[in-house]
Amino acid sequence: MNASRIITLTTDFGTTDAYAGSMKGAVLSVCPAATIVDITHQIPPQNIRAAQFMLQSAYRSFPPGTVHVAVVDPGVGSARPSIIIETAQYLFVGPDNGIFSFVFSEAAHCEVFEITNKAYMSARTSATFHGRDIFAPVAAHLTAGVAAAEIGTRTESRANLPLPKTRILDAQTIQGEIIHIDHYGNLVTNITQSDIRATFCNSPFSVSVNKTTIEKQVGHYDEAPAETLFCLYGSLSFLEISLKNDAATRLLPSQIGTPVLLTKKMD
Amino acid sequence: MNASRIITLTTDFGTTDAYAGSMKGAVLSVCPAATIVDITHQIPPQNIRAAQFMLQSAYRSFPPGTVHVAVVDPGVGSARPSIIIETAQYLFVGPDNGIFSFVFSEAAHCEVFEITNKAYMSARTSATFHGRDIFAPVAAHLTAGVAAAEIGTRTESRANLPLPKTRILDAQTIQGEIIHIDHYGNLVTNITQSDIRATFCNSPFSVSVNKTTIEKQVGHYDEAPAETLFCLYGSLSFLEISLKNDAATRLLPSQIGTPVLLTKKMD
Amino acid sequence: MNASRIITLTTDFGTTDAYAGSMKGAVLSVCPAATIVDITHQIPPQNIRAAQFMLQSAYRSFPPGTVHVAVVDPGVGSARPSIIIETAQYLFVGPDNGIFSFVFSEAAHCEVFEITNKAYMSARTSATFHGRDIFAPVAAHLTAGVAAAEIGTRTESRANLPLPKTRILDAQTIQGEIIHIDHYGNLVTNITQSDIRATFCNSPFSVSVNKTTIEKQVGHYDEAPAETLFCLYGSLSFLEISLKNDAATRLLPSQIGTPVLLTKKMD
Repeated sequence: MNASRIITLTTDFGTTDAYAGSMKGAVLSVCPAATIVDITHQIPPQNIRAAQFMLQSAYRSFPPGTVHVAVVDPGVGSARPSIIIETAQYLFVGPDNGIFSFVFSEAAHCEVFEITNKAYMSARTSATFHGRDIFAPVAAHLTAGVAAAEIGTRTESRANLPLPKTRILDAQTIQGEIIHIDHYGNLVTNITQSDIRATFCNSPFSVSVNKTTIEKQVGHYDEAPAETLFCLYGSLSFLEISLKNDAATRLLPSQIGTPVLLTKKMD
Repeated sequence: MNASRIITLTTDFGTTDAYAGSMKGAVLSVCPAATIVDITHQIPPQNIRAAQFMLQSAYRSFPPGTVHVAVVDPGVGSARPSIIIETAQYLFVGPDNGIFSFVFSEAAHCEVFEITNKAYMSARTSATFHGRDIFAPVAAHLTAGVAAAEIGTRTESRANLPLPKTRILDAQTIQGEIIHIDHYGNLVTNITQSDIRATFCNSPFSVSVNKTTIEKQVGHYDEAPAETLFCLYGSLSFLEISLKNDAATRLLPSQIGTPVLLTKKMD
Repeated sequence: MNASRIITLTTDFGTTDAYAGSMKGAVLSVCPAATIVDITHQIPPQNIRAAQFMLQSAYRSFPPGTVHVAVVDPGVGSARPSIIIETAQYLFVGPDNGIFSFVFSEAAHCEVFEITNKAYMSARTSATFHGRDIFAPVAAHLTAGVAAAEIGTRTESRANLPLPKTRILDAQTIQGEIIHIDHYGNLVTNITQSDIRATFCNSPFSVSVNKTTIEKQVGHYDEAPAETLFCLYGSLSFLEISLKNDAATRLLPSQIGTPVLLTKKMD
């Protein structure tokens, strides 16, 4: 696979410090022609699952050869390995702490390399900022055409922290949970359109969250009535619960991990 | 007009989700050499007027040929058209919901195209994320040199949602309103320096907001006394109400839409 | 020194307004090939020292020839000069209000130029937004290869606002203070690893902040016990006080300027 010159960043660095800027400087020091794109720097601190969901939701929008760097790294400086993952389409760079678990399940084929070659790290590597000192220069070297096998050593071991799976309780019932609440207050569940079709075919269903039942399903926001919770398939094909021109969380207090139950309606 | 390789983004996507990153990936998938600049992603959700003000305040700082994309889109997925606007200097891409009304009033000449050619959209177009699936690839194709007329069909119809106009009540009085409160707490009114000169010539005037009267006018912040509200012409030539090294909102609680009255001082 | 095409921005503009976007437009209008990197736009309004710390923490991560622009500028429009600083490695552009004081102490050699040549500013220069009208175009011209001496006039005078210095009270005691609290809630002190080694050699020490004493020192976060404050050298070699997977500020309320006392432990 040929690397493009595009590098994405997904971190919990926030935007008030210089951490993300320093990483970009480290990339540009190696590869001044790199195009760096922020996915987000506002992953909740140390939340590896949230970072995973965020990168999972965006990585396929980028052209083949993009190098995706993710840094949510509570184990920085410890013995946890740093890795490169190479799939048919993309490269991923970051700590081996489960942040790339979705890659292992979504990619038809992938190779994992433990980053070992100090020639591709910063000369002085701090114990607290591998984003700047290891992941940024490694990503930049990949972007500049260096092979993953030159930077690291093939490994089979890998941390895994998969997102929660939905459960098909019976032919009438699917159980999932809220995995993300977005900026608009939309509740994103882990239940996909294909989960639902496979179980319910095209039958209608109701959605229960806490003690609230949502009956209305629409194809797009504008179709929805005002002041009534409804569900629709979001841009990632996950079922989402929304409120028109408002935050669903206002009428339906909930959080990451809140259970969601889908019940097929009887004919 | 030749497109530059510059694309700006003005959205209500926020910065905690991957929405803006996904749009950028979609742009770079079509045109890897594009330079993408964020105006802001923090327009209040669904607030078309706020997006309009923000883009209006920035678009002329960009070189000719820049493609300005704006996405505040409560009607996404409905029948509302998607449009390209071409002026002598710039291209604009987004939903036809009034977000570009300032262009119609500011540009000497403009042509509007309804986006119809699916060859320039993503292969799979979601009902909830036209930013990624339509506007980003269309902007990228424009940037790569495709003509607007190739992507869309000329249309005369267009949504219009103009910013509130100032009213000259009489030769001594101008009425306007607060149209933006910025990050510093400066209150930006919709009354321009040329409105004021045309009505009051160079006579001094006082400014009333709620029950507060502001007498002081300065040329720049450093001239102003401490702890006293003052007004000055901001970088867009709108009259602004400020407080030195502090937020005017602290002494003068107010909001978007709060009326502002200017009264010419008697000699 | 040859300028690279890289420009960094450190400002108090926030991310909800179009100010940063307008600056980028002004850069790209002069030099469309510039690569612009945000350090941060979330310096607390008018806080020159905070901007200084932030830029100081990041500038050396960028390749030689980078132009660093910093705009925290309460005196905009007044008689305060605008300057370019040229060191062996970098160029700095901004107001002469002390924001670049660290450069004067860290660079072996530097030259300061007062920006005077209007040919390198915007045609219309506002009294409130020199970021867009002066600093952005000047940075872009530097990036495009124009010499600092062509844009400004050599000057010896310069504002100075150094960060607080640590004090060695005696061979057992170092006094410093908290100079930054980061996004994670880590308390960054102004006491460096080399300060500590020079005074205490490799002896252990305890850290007192308000009435709390911290005994634990670790090399990286993962080594630290849970629910116990500890200290470590951060990525800038400053001593930091942290709490594992949590904000140190939760157990140790403190702020910028809070004194920090280091006491050498007796053998």
